[in-house]
Amino acid sequence: MTSSSPLPSDLIDALRQAFGSRFSQGESVRLQHGRDESKHDPMLPDGVVFAESTEEVALVMGLCRQYQIPVIPYGVGSSVEGHILALRGGICIDLSGMNRIVAVHGEDLDATVQAGVTRKQLNDELKGTGLFFPIDPGADATLGGMAATRASGTNAVRYGTMRENVLALTVVTADGRIIKTGTRARKSSAGYDLTRLFVGSEGTLGIITELTVKLYPIPEAISAAVCAFPSVDAAVDTVIQTIQMGVPVARVELLDALTLQAINRYSKTTLPEAPTLFFEFHGSESSVQEQAELTQEIAQGNGGQDFQWSPRPEDRSRLWQARHDAYFACLQLKPGSRCFPTDVCVPISRLAECIHATNADIAQVSLPIALFGHVGDGNFHLVVLVDTANPKEMAEAEWINQRVVERALEAEGTCTGEHGVGLGKQKFLVREHGEGAVAVMRALKLALDPDDLLNPGKILPPA
Amino acid sequence: MTSSSPLPSDLIDALRQAFGSRFSQGESVRLQHGRDESKHDPMLPDGVVFAESTEEVALVMGLCRQYQIPVIPYGVGSSVEGHILALRGGICIDLSGMNRIVAVHGEDLDATVQAGVTRKQLNDELKGTGLFFPIDPGADATLGGMAATRASGTNAVRYGTMRENVLALTVVTADGRIIKTGTRARKSSAGYDLTRLFVGSEGTLGIITELTVKLYPIPEAISAAVCAFPSVDAAVDTVIQTIQMGVPVARVELLDALTLQAINRYSKTTLPEAPTLFFEFHGSESSVQEQAELTQEIAQGNGGQDFQWSPRPEDRSRLWQARHDAYFACLQLKPGSRCFPTDVCVPISRLAECIHATNADIAQVSLPIALFGHVGDGNFHLVVLVDTANPKEMAEAEWINQRVVERALEAEGTCTGEHGVGLGKQKFLVREHGEGAVAVMRALKLALDPDDLLNPGKILPPA
Repeated sequence: MTSSSPLPSDLIDALRQAFGSRFSQGESVRLQHGRDESKHDPMLPDGVVFAESTEEVALVMGLCRQYQIPVIPYGVGSSVEGHILALRGGICIDLSGMNRIVAVHGEDLDATVQAGVTRKQLNDELKGTGLFFPIDPGADATLGGMAATRASGTNAVRYGTMRENVLALTVVTADGRIIKTGTRARKSSAGYDLTRLFVGSEGTLGIITELTVKLYPIPEAISAAVCAFPSVDAAVDTVIQTIQMGVPVARVELLDALTLQAINRYSKTTLPEAPTLFFEFHGSESSVQEQAELTQEIAQGNGGQDFQWSPRPEDRSRLWQARHDAYFACLQLKPGSRCFPTDVCVPISRLAECIHATNADIAQVSLPIALFGHVGDGNFHLVVLVDTANPKEMAEAEWINQRVVERALEAEGTCTGEHGVGLGKQKFLVREHGEGAVAVMRALKLALDPDDLLNPGKILPPA
Repeated sequence: MTSSSPLPSDLIDALRQAFGSRFSQGESVRLQHGRDESKHDPMLPDGVVFAESTEEVALVMGLCRQYQIPVIPYGVGSSVEGHILALRGGICIDLSGMNRIVAVHGEDLDATVQAGVTRKQLNDELKGTGLFFPIDPGADATLGGMAATRASGTNAVRYGTMRENVLALTVVTADGRIIKTGTRARKSSAGYDLTRLFVGSEGTLGIITELTVKLYPIPEAISAAVCAFPSVDAAVDTVIQTIQMGVPVARVELLDALTLQAINRYSKTTLPEAPTLFFEFHGSESSVQEQAELTQEIAQGNGGQDFQWSPRPEDRSRLWQARHDAYFACLQLKPGSRCFPTDVCVPISRLAECIHATNADIAQVSLPIALFGHVGDGNFHLVVLVDTANPKEMAEAEWINQRVVERALEAEGTCTGEHGVGLGKQKFLVREHGEGAVAVMRALKLALDPDDLLNPGKILPPA
């Protein structure tokens, strides 16, 4: 829990004058903004500004540049790889107050929102429009944070990730300028793809203050089902065959027996405590029925039990809320522990072998480890429960993380499907991309943030 | 038809030694590589290398860097904004010989190909696999070129553009390094999105030599139909309502009466010479039927005639070949003319007014102008037929292009939906993106190509 060199008093005066009580150096505020949802120990910023507009963010950026002080954007702190830890202190800009829906263009299936709007807030505000926003990481994250980490969730297999669903961004650059990275056109070939450059840049190239995202018509019919399997392999094979058959499944989530146990306890559900798939189908009445029948057939061919349907919207909501709470449910398996999450994503043809080998690794360690994930994309997580103060436990967790990542990279996959690099995945970046590609990333960082003030120390490993 | 300073004799020697007859300075070879499919006058490179591997491209890049000579990548020369014109001479690298399918991973729905593979070649080689690659610009372009211009085509409304369909690239950077920009994972949050940075960079940030692209299962059922309308407005309204209803139409193309006239002459078809929509529906038998019925209903509500179906695959192929040949068909409306193409893309709610106002502009000029486009995306083209040597005609063409682009930008759209910037759209870049965003683009160019050797003078307007 380190802090660093104090802020220059002129900067403090300027921030106080500009923001009054919306600038804080209080210990509790700094602590709240110096930690995330994961295993990483807190590292506190020297001060927090609660911004309410893009112009205010630009003002803070300009001041911090003048005094050469780091700037860290903050949404709700739900990241899991230490993204918002203040390695070198500096000013944290809390964007959660920038939570205005700027515009909903129902006819164009898009909405423009401030960066602090959360995914649930957006969907709440869309009620009655017949539209929804599909990207749903476990936490009720801000859309700015989700763009910054290139987040996805359970719907990505059908609707894509933040990469595919952001049309344009408003960004404050390191020199305090405000830029727009795109228009509301669905496609464009007009120059370098700045939108995609900032999506996934974790606050290291600029600060996202506003986003235009795609919306989708709520399908005429939605149907969700749960199916238990005799083994994880059987469940994974079902997923692979479903995807390869071209069934446009909207969600397909794998949860292992331990995860089901945790969910039943946490969410008061009574699901079978066996390897299980959660499905959701979207489309017209007949198309949903067709998808469901085909998938059910595939599942039965792999020894799956009968589908348990969640016909009513409230049953579906409960089911998916339970799925989204899996991370928190698992944490309760070992009270007081923290989570060391893994997040690999592999080509689907390699998924079964990767999960199979991972389960062999799990059998070798003493820690409780739950496995679940967005297997339609080839993405799965381990929730490794650790006492971060126990070196033996941390060593075991590191060992299994390393094994899982190396296996994924050998399978032409990635070390992180949706969590981002932050601090936790830096050591794998060169291994995944090669020295040359990481050198290109360094060149981009240097070009857009020559003074290394934007969330310094994240993504790129120390040179 | 300018050439520029001759190449250093040491460079010529080195290229001759490395490439033998695959290095040419012949006038006809240089002319062939110094022009594209559009209105732009040719500008010849000083020499052409026919590369056969990524390593050879890296070798050329290294040599050209040593002698500070520009390098221009070339596929089949089907670009339409002057992308491959050698403004400052230099070496053109012809990648068409790099036409090997490196790997098809049917189970993972992806393929890795060399940059010179064309879209038709890829689909030919996929025959029998049950898979296809959907992106289809009019020309049988190379996939490398399509990635470089962020191309799309008739299927983008359902399957996305090159932006959504490239998983990873092999790129030769300005310093002669070979990098890979991604893995075969469907999604990743591992660092800056280099893939999307190079997609659409038109050879100005690096040379794409290999691509991994997404493939799709050929739908169980495919159905295509043609429907004529009493007016362009009625056709456009039909498209807007179809999209807003969430019909997952695979293709929906608008062609105006003049385009139909040109197509009938060029492709020996007998389609009604009226504003027309070409549709295609993909899915299961019942889903395709459902989509078609719903769309037909919408069309009838707007005064559309009965759908004319193309039930047999060969009829469908003929229909879409006719659509793809529309550009060339229109050129024949005024033999000897060249095409001044426009390429705006707007939010779909603004499409009707944009096309309506464009038609009013068309009525004011003396040139033959055909209008067609991928209206499901909000993207439409004018094919303005000009004698490039006639200043009055060129002035008229410039006037209407300017009008169309300004209207699109006012409607929160883009000056180019799929053609790219090249030379032709540079003057609109600042207007579309703003000074700040273009400054960021310049910083990226400087960071990755500090000597300005990679396709110099393209995309970014002169500072």
